[in-house]
Amino acid sequence: MNVIEVADPADERLADYVRLRDTNLRRSLEAKHGLFLAEGEKVVRRALRAGYQPRSLLLTRRRRRVLDDVLDTFQAPVYVVDDAVAEQLVGFHIHRGILASFHRKPLPTVPEVVASARRIVVLEDIVDHTNVGAIFRSAAGLGVDAAVLAPRCADPLYRRAVKVSMGAVFTLPYARLTDWASGLEDLRRSGFTLVALTPAADAVPLPEAVHRDGKYALLFGSEGDGLSSRWLDQADVRARIPMAVRDVDSLNVTAAAAIACYELMRSA
Amino acid sequence: MNVIEVADPADERLADYVRLRDTNLRRSLEAKHGLFLAEGEKVVRRALRAGYQPRSLLLTRRRRRVLDDVLDTFQAPVYVVDDAVAEQLVGFHIHRGILASFHRKPLPTVPEVVASARRIVVLEDIVDHTNVGAIFRSAAGLGVDAAVLAPRCADPLYRRAVKVSMGAVFTLPYARLTDWASGLEDLRRSGFTLVALTPAADAVPLPEAVHRDGKYALLFGSEGDGLSSRWLDQADVRARIPMAVRDVDSLNVTAAAAIACYELMRSA
Ligand SMILES: C[S@@+](CC[C@H](N)C(=O)[O-])C[C@H]1O[C@@H](n2cnc3c(N)ncnc32)[C@H](O)[C@@H]1O
Ligand SMILES: C[S@@+](CC[C@H](N)C(=O)[O-])C[C@H]1O[C@@H](n2cnc3c(N)ncnc32)[C@H](O)[C@@H]1O
Repeated sequence: MNVIEVADPADERLADYVRLRDTNLRRSLEAKHGLFLAEGEKVVRRALRAGYQPRSLLLTRRRRRVLDDVLDTFQAPVYVVDDAVAEQLVGFHIHRGILASFHRKPLPTVPEVVASARRIVVLEDIVDHTNVGAIFRSAAGLGVDAAVLAPRCADPLYRRAVKVSMGAVFTLPYARLTDWASGLEDLRRSGFTLVALTPAADAVPLPEAVHRDGKYALLFGSEGDGLSSRWLDQADVRARIPMAVRDVDSLNVTAAAAIACYELMRSA
Repeated sequence: MNVIEVADPADERLADYVRLRDTNLRRSLEAKHGLFLAEGEKVVRRALRAGYQPRSLLLTRRRRRVLDDVLDTFQAPVYVVDDAVAEQLVGFHIHRGILASFHRKPLPTVPEVVASARRIVVLEDIVDHTNVGAIFRSAAGLGVDAAVLAPRCADPLYRRAVKVSMGAVFTLPYARLTDWASGLEDLRRSGFTLVALTPAADAVPLPEAVHRDGKYALLFGSEGDGLSSRWLDQADVRARIPMAVRDVDSLNVTAAAAIACYELMRSA
């Protein structure tokens, strides 16, 4: 193990951790180096267990012993810094005191990911990282086999999504459609019944849309507009979670996804 | 209608809207004046429909016409400001361009709120406003009758909770237990079966815990620790949402609440 104390927040070796709240900067930096960040002991351990290779680890002095049990076999550098240095570097106080930078793996293709899957979620233009992370946590927790993302769906390995997912983004296999317009057709040809989740009144109640023994893909849309009319049209069935007549028009997409995955798995 | 252009962000008349991200300041200011804030056209309209009395309205110039249809009958002052003034006042860019300050109403008591209710949610120490808002949205949307909050549960009328709930905090009746230790007993005496939601392996599967025609109270705990052992012990039954054996130990409380309310209402 290779422990290095660093006192200067501008030290080049800490560049992976710079300005974590600057979304534009982070997007380009992470894409350029093919890296992603995990924070907190639990989530970092999950990334390691899932086989991700660390680029480096950043520990605050207070928390420097926390991963000692795995550091024996650790090749990547372990940087130890003061709280104040960490805060200047990342732009806020990291109260968990542990961050890690990992190499991304090449993403599998959609056919690879769905080959052995029977129950999947498909996320259209869900651009909010919190929502993507939350859906991964529910889908993985409830036993869904995989996720497929539209080209514009937010990145599950972005820090905020990783965090909200509690590391479920490492265990739920996922892939990205290369073509928004034709991607659903390919899924259908792989044998999936495409179920579009929508609050629309003329959709069928969800329990009538999913049956035992089928191969199902559940489609979810964004907070503002919901699923595109193109995807709604291409679906085999449009399903709604019955709602009360209160002054509420729709569920949050993460609530809808939790319920739909639950209903799907109970009828599996 | 009483429209006033204000150019100085330090103008006393705008004091209700000051430094919206400063949680400590906001808590004391809102408690002192018995006010709460709503943001965005949809949510402000919902507060008005729910009968909340406005203290004032803040519109950016760009959005000044947006509530004209209701402003005729509006007694409270309507402040119109430039984007820059709004930003200096609240501390960030309010892209929806509309904020309103409302008088709180006196909260009903728990017996008042549960008198005619048959299906309720009970939130123990859920201190995160986002989680509270999300649970209200799901519970209201799925047709639950009311919410009961432990003394330490976060305030549903805090700005962030209001926003995430999309205004469901105005339509779902709620009350706060005055005593954490004895509150559940009172609910049981009112005829509710107390169902504690927990991921514990020895809990019964959720569908076995809720039946047609019962009066049910679903109990949820916080993200970190879950329900207290006191509440788990006092419950009539401990119920779990079955999970997959993946590297995920529990669902997020908002996902668990969405699923549990769905299961409860489908068996209603
Ligand atoms: C906030 S909703 C979008 C609302 C949008 N106005 C619409 O009509 O679709 C976000 C996503 O959650 C899912 N959703 C929300 N409420 C639902 C319900 N009651 N039944 C089925 N899906 C729902 C849908 O997939 C939707 O695209
Ligand atoms: C993140 S969990 C708390 C985890 C905590 N370690 C525990 O064991 O309770 C937050 C809340 O969501 C609910 N919850 C989460 N997963 C659940 C599941 N699989 N079944 C039932 N309730 C669950 C429970 O009410 C719990 O108190």
